[in-house]
Amino acid sequence: MNQPGSGYLDAAAGLPLHPVAAEAMQAAWQDGWADPSRLTGAGRRSAVLLDAARQAAAAELGVRPDELSFLPSGVHALQQAVLGSLAGRRRAGNVLVHSAVEHSAVFAAADWHRQHGGQALVAGVDPTARVDLAEFVELARGPGVATAVLQAANHEVGTRQPVAEAAGQLAELGVPLVVDAGHELVYGQAPAAAPIFTADARLWGGPAGVGLLVVRQGSRWRPPFPVDEAESGRALGPANVPAIVAAVASLRATRAGRAAEGRRLAGLIERIRDGVPRAVSDTVVLGPDDPAARLPHLVTFSCLYLDGEALLTELDRRGFAVSSGSSCTADTLTPSHVLVAMGALTSGNVRISLHPGVGQADVERFLAVLPEAVAAVRGQAPGSPAARPAPAADAALTDPAPNQDHGPVLDSRGRRCPLPVLDLARALPGIEVGSELTVLADDPAAASDLAAWCRMRGQQLVDQAGLDSGGTAYRVRRLR
Amino acid sequence: MNQPGSGYLDAAAGLPLHPVAAEAMQAAWQDGWADPSRLTGAGRRSAVLLDAARQAAAAELGVRPDELSFLPSGVHALQQAVLGSLAGRRRAGNVLVHSAVEHSAVFAAADWHRQHGGQALVAGVDPTARVDLAEFVELARGPGVATAVLQAANHEVGTRQPVAEAAGQLAELGVPLVVDAGHELVYGQAPAAAPIFTADARLWGGPAGVGLLVVRQGSRWRPPFPVDEAESGRALGPANVPAIVAAVASLRATRAGRAAEGRRLAGLIERIRDGVPRAVSDTVVLGPDDPAARLPHLVTFSCLYLDGEALLTELDRRGFAVSSGSSCTADTLTPSHVLVAMGALTSGNVRISLHPGVGQADVERFLAVLPEAVAAVRGQAPGSPAARPAPAADAALTDPAPNQDHGPVLDSRGRRCPLPVLDLARALPGIEVGSELTVLADDPAAASDLAAWCRMRGQQLVDQAGLDSGGTAYRVRRLR
Repeated sequence: MNQPGSGYLDAAAGLPLHPVAAEAMQAAWQDGWADPSRLTGAGRRSAVLLDAARQAAAAELGVRPDELSFLPSGVHALQQAVLGSLAGRRRAGNVLVHSAVEHSAVFAAADWHRQHGGQALVAGVDPTARVDLAEFVELARGPGVATAVLQAANHEVGTRQPVAEAAGQLAELGVPLVVDAGHELVYGQAPAAAPIFTADARLWGGPAGVGLLVVRQGSRWRPPFPVDEAESGRALGPANVPAIVAAVASLRATRAGRAAEGRRLAGLIERIRDGVPRAVSDTVVLGPDDPAARLPHLVTFSCLYLDGEALLTELDRRGFAVSSGSSCTADTLTPSHVLVAMGALTSGNVRISLHPGVGQADVERFLAVLPEAVAAVRGQAPGSPAARPAPAADAALTDPAPNQDHGPVLDSRGRRCPLPVLDLARALPGIEVGSELTVLADDPAAASDLAAWCRMRGQQLVDQAGLDSGGTAYRVRRLR
Repeated sequence: MNQPGSGYLDAAAGLPLHPVAAEAMQAAWQDGWADPSRLTGAGRRSAVLLDAARQAAAAELGVRPDELSFLPSGVHALQQAVLGSLAGRRRAGNVLVHSAVEHSAVFAAADWHRQHGGQALVAGVDPTARVDLAEFVELARGPGVATAVLQAANHEVGTRQPVAEAAGQLAELGVPLVVDAGHELVYGQAPAAAPIFTADARLWGGPAGVGLLVVRQGSRWRPPFPVDEAESGRALGPANVPAIVAAVASLRATRAGRAAEGRRLAGLIERIRDGVPRAVSDTVVLGPDDPAARLPHLVTFSCLYLDGEALLTELDRRGFAVSSGSSCTADTLTPSHVLVAMGALTSGNVRISLHPGVGQADVERFLAVLPEAVAAVRGQAPGSPAARPAPAADAALTDPAPNQDHGPVLDSRGRRCPLPVLDLARALPGIEVGSELTVLADDPAAASDLAAWCRMRGQQLVDQAGLDSGGTAYRVRRLR
């Protein structure tokens, strides 16, 4: 039951209820429906189920049962983890440190913290999205640092972060590390060294409505928002016992076979990493090459010169569900902060994340379908090479203005990504190697995308400057 | 399936999943498991289910779909309602007004508001728990009032509050009213006049994990805590579609028959209100006499000279589940703030709340069992009349000290409620009408319970004063 379908390649966005979870939930509807804090028979039966679930989950995660609380979602848990750690460490200071590629919930918490007088410092990442550990620790060493946050693995590109090293070095500084552990928990290890960590049950086929918050003994943590007596003062309202029982059942079932399943999925991911650039031109696979340095079941690649959402729609039409851009900001127009921080193209990204129902044949089918989906999108894009190999009329290459000497000017203002990048890619071969042209663009994503394209293509972004008339002028030198 | 049992008389603490809800949830596991904000096929199918559920619930409540959000519980919704209204009205001031008998979540929000520099003013209630509307409106008229909160009906004694009048008068003052509507929504009306109202789906057999937050158009409201794009910025994390679909299905199913079912349950409640004082001595039924002034399915009565939790246990042993004291603080040692505000006895209270599976025979069986359960508890209590009709040794009536003339002194220090009341009840007949005795007690509940007993028994609490040695001295005059 509840099979997501073998074309569902978006496991990191959540899975349907695991059969074991569905069975556990239905059973718990009988004996776990009552508020477990009640002194009635029904309440006591609920409490028994809740205690058993907590003990099983704690054993699975290698923590004590009283260190584990259940919240309404992973996002709730992560926010409470971050802001609760800040609240508990108020005497140490009001500075939060986090990496540039955390989940948007961490950025939302950091914004809220800033609005309430706190400070938040951001450590950069390398082009594979791995945090600069030296910078992270250096920031945490600064005055007034209360808490630092680092994900176990990046949710968009799968890159594992050095959480054990970070936790160890921060422990010496007396700064607690909060770890967003969700995606790593499915096939990997719980972050044993982290004083505080969180996860969402939907990643392993648990129901919606269950986040895990672990606060290890001895960690300072205070509820950042009003709570009641539920879950040792870490949650609000009666525990959702049927959903918790189901979440824990599917956690155990999923992790029981995690070593073998992780290896199997890692093999499929390698096939995708290898196959996509062969199948489709102008494609770059993101994240580290070393399989040990990333999640086994997730990969993101960038297809140049196309809009990721359009590709997502073409793939959906062909029976494949994937993510594009930031998984959490896909319906806003801001580019993914993760891809910007990595210096990757923010348009044209596809995230594939596999689940146990996906096999080799599905991956081969995906690789067979991808080229036609990409061609369909590239063909649609106004001004795309496929659609119009002739010089563009809508982004005209004009002679330089008399008062400047940076070569011809390409006016891509009013055009949304990926079009400015496409305009540049088409125009650059028309000038001499060693000379320059200037692109004018006003899409906010152009700043990171033009820079990323130049890096990828070995060209040079010489400089950029704001225009009085709106938008930005990007000077690009042709190097090859 | 999921029958709570006909001895389950604690519907207001939550019901098992309504069969319609279970069926809807199982169906939604197939088509509603995905995050509805996703652009994949699975996401779109989820979004369709969510939209349909929102429209159906909005129609049932008489609001627009875009005015209704789903949160993880009624407590979450209530807290967000109160603090979000305060945040949205920050320019108007930072004063919150609420009644003395609101849900503990409102008190928690008020405490939090105070800790963050705000102010909270509390309007009193009459002995039936009905708010003093004139005082409530007068407080709301004061300078800097941002928001006022009033429940539709009290969760402990069932008293309906004048929300329509309050909303109307406050609208003239420009102060929005937040209404905790949950218990009233099961068999009654949505508070059409309230700009903001909330409820929890567990009250009508919906699953745990669903709270309703209605913010009517034109109401100022701002997220008090960090949120993301979910639920129009009023919630955090992806919507829990299967649970929402189930909650709305059971809301409609329950309310479809609410007029007839409300009348049927009201008849059973009248039988309990009439039968309990006949069946058990020294018992007082709380709340207004007028059936229209209270919820049809809920009643609370006080049994003097016993501990409510002990009675709850005796009833549980005999197959009946009820609540005692404050439903939300039963496992703490603080007396119910609702009962204190009413001036009622805080120990020995039993709340009965009925659900559609309870019939006349169950009520008769309860009335038959209650006297033996009460006798068992009263017999257990050390120093109770049943156990030891002879003068108590553990609460000795001593001669007055030479420097005071308030009659004999009864030292009940170290004895927990209901024992100080019991000591007084036993000792008072031993002194002359018109003369006084002094009770020394240090249980925090003694202050309200001794006063309540005197009112109930037509005796006079002359005065009370703190003792240097700890505890309080209560002077009581025998009037009859």
